[in-house]
Amino acid sequence: MKKHKILVLSGPNLNMLGKREVAIYGGDTLETIHERLHMLADELNVEVACSQHNSDAEIIELLGRAAGEFSGVIFNAGAYAHYCDALRGAIESSRLPCIEVHMSNIYSREEFRHKSVIAPVCAGCIMGFGGRSYLLALRAMRNIILDKEAEML
Amino acid sequence: MKKHKILVLSGPNLNMLGKREVAIYGGDTLETIHERLHMLADELNVEVACSQHNSDAEIIELLGRAAGEFSGVIFNAGAYAHYCDALRGAIESSRLPCIEVHMSNIYSREEFRHKSVIAPVCAGCIMGFGGRSYLLALRAMRNIILDKEAEML
Amino acid sequence: MKKHKILVLSGPNLNMLGKREVAIYGGDTLETIHERLHMLADELNVEVACSQHNSDAEIIELLGRAAGEFSGVIFNAGAYAHYCDALRGAIESSRLPCIEVHMSNIYSREEFRHKSVIAPVCAGCIMGFGGRSYLLALRAMRNIILDKEAEML
Amino acid sequence: MKKHKILVLSGPNLNMLGKREVAIYGGDTLETIHERLHMLADELNVEVACSQHNSDAEIIELLGRAAGEFSGVIFNAGAYAHYCDALRGAIESSRLPCIEVHMSNIYSREEFRHKSVIAPVCAGCIMGFGGRSYLLALRAMRNIILDKEAEML
Amino acid sequence: MKKHKILVLSGPNLNMLGKREVAIYGGDTLETIHERLHMLADELNVEVACSQHNSDAEIIELLGRAAGEFSGVIFNAGAYAHYCDALRGAIESSRLPCIEVHMSNIYSREEFRHKSVIAPVCAGCIMGFGGRSYLLALRAMRNIILDKEAEML
Amino acid sequence: MKKHKILVLSGPNLNMLGKREVAIYGGDTLETIHERLHMLADELNVEVACSQHNSDAEIIELLGRAAGEFSGVIFNAGAYAHYCDALRGAIESSRLPCIEVHMSNIYSREEFRHKSVIAPVCAGCIMGFGGRSYLLALRAMRNIILDKEAEML
Amino acid sequence: MKKHKILVLSGPNLNMLGKREVAIYGGDTLETIHERLHMLADELNVEVACSQHNSDAEIIELLGRAAGEFSGVIFNAGAYAHYCDALRGAIESSRLPCIEVHMSNIYSREEFRHKSVIAPVCAGCIMGFGGRSYLLALRAMRNIILDKEAEML
Amino acid sequence: MKKHKILVLSGPNLNMLGKREVAIYGGDTLETIHERLHMLADELNVEVACSQHNSDAEIIELLGRAAGEFSGVIFNAGAYAHYCDALRGAIESSRLPCIEVHMSNIYSREEFRHKSVIAPVCAGCIMGFGGRSYLLALRAMRNIILDKEAEML
Amino acid sequence: MKKHKILVLSGPNLNMLGKREVAIYGGDTLETIHERLHMLADELNVEVACSQHNSDAEIIELLGRAAGEFSGVIFNAGAYAHYCDALRGAIESSRLPCIEVHMSNIYSREEFRHKSVIAPVCAGCIMGFGGRSYLLALRAMRNIILDKEAEML
Amino acid sequence: MKKHKILVLSGPNLNMLGKREVAIYGGDTLETIHERLHMLADELNVEVACSQHNSDAEIIELLGRAAGEFSGVIFNAGAYAHYCDALRGAIESSRLPCIEVHMSNIYSREEFRHKSVIAPVCAGCIMGFGGRSYLLALRAMRNIILDKEAEML
Amino acid sequence: MKKHKILVLSGPNLNMLGKREVAIYGGDTLETIHERLHMLADELNVEVACSQHNSDAEIIELLGRAAGEFSGVIFNAGAYAHYCDALRGAIESSRLPCIEVHMSNIYSREEFRHKSVIAPVCAGCIMGFGGRSYLLALRAMRNIILDKEAEML
Amino acid sequence: MKKHKILVLSGPNLNMLGKREVAIYGGDTLETIHERLHMLADELNVEVACSQHNSDAEIIELLGRAAGEFSGVIFNAGAYAHYCDALRGAIESSRLPCIEVHMSNIYSREEFRHKSVIAPVCAGCIMGFGGRSYLLALRAMRNIILDKEAEML
Repeated sequence: MKKHKILVLSGPNLNMLGKREVAIYGGDTLETIHERLHMLADELNVEVACSQHNSDAEIIELLGRAAGEFSGVIFNAGAYAHYCDALRGAIESSRLPCIEVHMSNIYSREEFRHKSVIAPVCAGCIMGFGGRSYLLALRAMRNIILDKEAEML
Repeated sequence: MKKHKILVLSGPNLNMLGKREVAIYGGDTLETIHERLHMLADELNVEVACSQHNSDAEIIELLGRAAGEFSGVIFNAGAYAHYCDALRGAIESSRLPCIEVHMSNIYSREEFRHKSVIAPVCAGCIMGFGGRSYLLALRAMRNIILDKEAEML
Repeated sequence: MKKHKILVLSGPNLNMLGKREVAIYGGDTLETIHERLHMLADELNVEVACSQHNSDAEIIELLGRAAGEFSGVIFNAGAYAHYCDALRGAIESSRLPCIEVHMSNIYSREEFRHKSVIAPVCAGCIMGFGGRSYLLALRAMRNIILDKEAEML
Repeated sequence: MKKHKILVLSGPNLNMLGKREVAIYGGDTLETIHERLHMLADELNVEVACSQHNSDAEIIELLGRAAGEFSGVIFNAGAYAHYCDALRGAIESSRLPCIEVHMSNIYSREEFRHKSVIAPVCAGCIMGFGGRSYLLALRAMRNIILDKEAEML
Repeated sequence: MKKHKILVLSGPNLNMLGKREVAIYGGDTLETIHERLHMLADELNVEVACSQHNSDAEIIELLGRAAGEFSGVIFNAGAYAHYCDALRGAIESSRLPCIEVHMSNIYSREEFRHKSVIAPVCAGCIMGFGGRSYLLALRAMRNIILDKEAEML
Repeated sequence: MKKHKILVLSGPNLNMLGKREVAIYGGDTLETIHERLHMLADELNVEVACSQHNSDAEIIELLGRAAGEFSGVIFNAGAYAHYCDALRGAIESSRLPCIEVHMSNIYSREEFRHKSVIAPVCAGCIMGFGGRSYLLALRAMRNIILDKEAEML
Repeated sequence: MKKHKILVLSGPNLNMLGKREVAIYGGDTLETIHERLHMLADELNVEVACSQHNSDAEIIELLGRAAGEFSGVIFNAGAYAHYCDALRGAIESSRLPCIEVHMSNIYSREEFRHKSVIAPVCAGCIMGFGGRSYLLALRAMRNIILDKEAEML
Repeated sequence: MKKHKILVLSGPNLNMLGKREVAIYGGDTLETIHERLHMLADELNVEVACSQHNSDAEIIELLGRAAGEFSGVIFNAGAYAHYCDALRGAIESSRLPCIEVHMSNIYSREEFRHKSVIAPVCAGCIMGFGGRSYLLALRAMRNIILDKEAEML
Repeated sequence: MKKHKILVLSGPNLNMLGKREVAIYGGDTLETIHERLHMLADELNVEVACSQHNSDAEIIELLGRAAGEFSGVIFNAGAYAHYCDALRGAIESSRLPCIEVHMSNIYSREEFRHKSVIAPVCAGCIMGFGGRSYLLALRAMRNIILDKEAEML
Repeated sequence: MKKHKILVLSGPNLNMLGKREVAIYGGDTLETIHERLHMLADELNVEVACSQHNSDAEIIELLGRAAGEFSGVIFNAGAYAHYCDALRGAIESSRLPCIEVHMSNIYSREEFRHKSVIAPVCAGCIMGFGGRSYLLALRAMRNIILDKEAEML
Repeated sequence: MKKHKILVLSGPNLNMLGKREVAIYGGDTLETIHERLHMLADELNVEVACSQHNSDAEIIELLGRAAGEFSGVIFNAGAYAHYCDALRGAIESSRLPCIEVHMSNIYSREEFRHKSVIAPVCAGCIMGFGGRSYLLALRAMRNIILDKEAEML
Repeated sequence: MKKHKILVLSGPNLNMLGKREVAIYGGDTLETIHERLHMLADELNVEVACSQHNSDAEIIELLGRAAGEFSGVIFNAGAYAHYCDALRGAIESSRLPCIEVHMSNIYSREEFRHKSVIAPVCAGCIMGFGGRSYLLALRAMRNIILDKEAEML
């Protein structure tokens, strides 16, 4: 039986992880997080496809094509979460369950970070646990997918 | 005599038309709308060049080069209409008359859709008529262009 | 077969059209616009009944009786659009499709004009094209009515 | 030589003057104020036409026809001053100089009275002097009219 | 001994009751409500005079003349409640106790309905009980009037 | 046949009734109001259980257990109405019709009292009639319950 | 019998009158206005003492000593009107009637000019009539003083 | 070696879980969630102590005593999250790492739920996964505790 | 002669004093502060009754019974000061003079602490002096009480 | 050993104390308060230098020179507290501990008085006790100075 | 040929430079900055007149007299920039080009510093470079003056 | 010794410079400005690398790679300055000093231009001097770099 594939997207500047503000985001690079995601995916019997994008247009394109291939999206939109309404539309268009992920607890930081324009179209949100936010999201997404399969039976 | 050319631009996620939220946007694809625009253009004796873009930068580039070639712009900025001030600048820079188009009536939907940052630099706005919003805009644009020509005589 | 009748309503001060602020509203009088509406109505095989009212109560009365006789409403509420919640209720009560019309692009003018309390109960909005806003609305309304007929078959 | 005529309009509930809240508006009736206006008009060699209206539509009608006959408007819009944007349009349409008048100092009362939507289209404002606000406005209006005449010479 | 008379006023669009949005306002017509008010008035040994008005000016006129004839006012201002400051003044001028009535619970509906400009000058408010809001208000008004009589003795 | 039971809850400081601010709340004690409620309940053939609570937790507990035993809730939340979102949840959880009651007209008092966080989950609201607000609410609640019974038949 | 003395104060930058923004403030210098005030004072049988101050402290001092010597204050606070709460206190402390004066109609200019922190403690306000605002205020103040005298008899 | 103990607190109305709004919160009861937490705790080699409280005071007391006994707190504050500043203080006082948990995605629901006053003092937040939000939080908390132990070595 | 008794109340989390955020609140425990209050009370010839409460309901109860026994209230409401409108009512109901006390200067800390809902019903406020805020308040309260006694003679 | 000197500053209009609004500020003159401050200073073995200023510039100058001579500042900024950011800078520049003092409880008066721009740079605040606010502040300041001395040892 | 003279004004508390908050404003005194300005002025063949003022009135006076003597103004308004509308008027009245200068980047500090009421009437702004902000402004001002001269030729 | 390299970035639509709104931005093209920057760089013994980008993603990429090669960034973000939080992150990630540059004085134009989301992470800001804003920024950046070098010695 075919494994479920989960799209893991990271937004602008997240390629700089482990190189900046270690106090806030931890010392892990995005590559390390991606490796851990692949390991946990194996354990949970799913597949993950991980990528990072500084361009909102690239993410919109990916989400536009995701529907056929993927069963869910884990999305750390970074600063785009605060204003990029176009990404909200892209998530809605994908018709896939999406989990919002942040490495820091955005609601305990500066005022302008307290707003997520994608939150209203996401199933849930996990934030504040550094790279582990992604791993917890992977567990959560697998459950969402299994629930949906169960409902269809 | 040379026909007037009108640039018809559609913003992020509009390539997904007819595939998502049919209740709000209707069942037509963007391709169908483009075809109808070409047909109406023939009838009105103008030309249209239609394209869709998920990248604001692409639209800015196109508008930057539009002045020489086109006589007007019909622009469905999608979600970019709500926050993308850079597009406002691009329309201004083009010095072309621009008509804002929306398939749904954005002022009858969620609060965040009630704001258009490009409205102040557009000649007019047509919204709420699905794909027909574009067709009505084409008629309106043709009149604007004819008026301008008449003024110059 | 009986022609569809469309009610075309214009709100306060619009009887002054062509006599004031020509730079914003153009030089046409409301009478001229009404004539053009009748001509286009003939062309589109519908009927229009056009009137102007400085009293919101008169408009409420007309909308209250419109349901039996008319198939749609084209409404330039003028300044009433910005605050007159009673008109919103009147449109809802009429159960007729309504198109909001403005001669100028209200979202490119003063702040207080950026709010339309009737927008949420209108099918669509056309603004910024002077007297032609009405004509475009007539074309749009005819399509809405035909669509509704088609749905009923 | 023909005397200048000045239109003096009073808005909703002002027919109740002298019958309510005497502490705020004083004990004079509107009739008494009108008489004093006529007396002062004689003294200043102008004519006044005074009326009171509970309907904004009536005021809009009067202002719409005022241009030919009158040289200026003195307007106590009462509560309509706080929200009735249609009256703003009517004053603009009249192309006559207008002085806003209030019997009480609206900026020293409740918050909702601190806003006048007609202020931006009025030449000046006089408030807080009870019935004398009208009389002072008559003096001020005469000067405005004389200045305009002088400019035209 | 003469019966107390109570003025029962209903604002814009309420003549459409029972014909629109039955889910929100119930299926009763205003005529039925008026009949029930007359029946309850008989039972409570008071008189009621019931009318509906789409014009705020009419209501202002009625309230201006009410003081001599009526002992209290029951007022469903409909949408006028949200912005019509002139009605606030009219209630104050009448010097009669006034009860604000709404058929629906305005504070559980859209944001713009959460504001009543007449509330600050009303004795109390009853809302959310459909046509019965009026009947409860009649009971409440009778008690207010009896209390006032008792105070005067 | 079993009588319907109605839970009548009063929030913080209402045990002080008749002892404080008599100008605003009247001179009746809560005990007197409870007695009158019992008398009216007899007349209307329902039962009431009345209690006062200074603790939101107690009210939450009572509402949590109310569903089985009671057919409706009359609730004067006092100052808790202005901010206590937990009570909103408790009313929703109870799945019982709830009528919001206030002795004073909260919308004619200080700004902070103009907000009720429970209003959106209440059937209706009665305020401004002192202790009689409760009695009117009892009549209203009885009708709501009878309507629900009638619907079920 | 001793003449009443009226203090006429002008705030910051008003010494520049006639030298700047003639379109807004007119071409009169403050000296000319003071002369006209003295002439009108003679006519009205009162005295005026006129001065201009760029320092709020100076104005506060003058108002602090004004009570014994003057019967009223005419005050063009200029830009201080928009924020200088200390002047509000000074007017209150003086216990003298004060008329707020502005040469332009501050409510028809930029947003920040729409606020007067001294308005709540002024008897009335006259604005928009250039230097004549002062003259009208002098007439108004004389009436206020005469009324107060009459009340004391 | 002694197991780490984790305090799992649930706020007002959460005892009603599985009995109300199943569409939003899922059909699980809080008891079922507590059982699953104990099972996962065993698996992760930690202990959990789970309780539900309708009283903020009880939660404050528990958090005040938690420091000695527990290594971390998982807290579903329910509606208290939106306004109860006292709980913020209690979490700070406890000096324990705290994870905010919500069953629904509060940022995709009504406006008033978009604010968490405890977020600024929580390490992270997990919301939108029904009862599984707690289980994911338990995994996250175990990692936080292990990290802290590692840092101390 | 009987000594005046003063009720000293401390709100949520203040039992943690000296155990948390020493930089902000100082190192004293609440017990130490209570001892110093008793010592100063002896010196000032008054009595104090000191208690701390994590429950707003408890405080409401105490204030409800305070009128007979106490002559004044010193109240450090802690975080309840920021939102707990029910405490405002309780202070009003007590009819006792109340002094608001805070250990830190709440207006120099985070935004949410800048609001005190009890301030409007307190005689005065002392904040920013750690435990000494209470002692200064005791001196202030004694003076208030002596003044009231003097007034009654 | 040299006595500590404390600068006591009073802002605009406070020279009018005892002459205006006695209900709010009490009947004491500022001179009386200064005398009491000198007496209490003797008792506490410190010196005070008291002055009143209607000019913010004077206060800024004094604070600028205060550092060498004084050990602390007691400051009743009067209305300047609400907007005068320059005074905030002056207090910061002085590097002296400053106590904000108000005779009335500014947070129980008009909205515009609820904001103190100097609060964030003051150690503490005492308000609502008339002239005694100063005396309490003197006690508080002496303790702050002694604490600082103790810290330095 | 006569050298251009440039007025360099510094506002409240700037005489304290180099004595306070060195981390924000750098260690230079204003005297040092003035010396460097004179040196650069020599280099650029212009003259500067530098002064510091704690009184807004002094600055208004200077600006009022500046027109004849100076060709431009460099203005560090300090805290006055945030609220002192009178200075805005003074700059306008001077009819001289003005450059706003701040030593720190005001938009990266506290919220209240993010507003400059003089910005709208200044040609440009330079901030964040400590004392060098003045020097850069001098270069910029010289260019503005040369441009104006060139335009006039 | 190696020259310092400075990255000069210009955002969306700035390639249109000299072609649009000459009144606001001056007639220079961006190419001319770049040339002048190279000339001044030679004079100041630094290097500049200048580029223009309509895509925020491109800028993010460049800033992400800038750290190794460049010593500072001069950034005219154009309209992206008003909302593009992702660029704020990119500047922070670069760990390079950044100077914000605008050709016009954004705080003297439309309201929406008054906000810069990158200001809080920039060292300073220069705006309003047309193309010279860049040149002044180059001087300022050179000083910042030299200061940093000096600090490191």
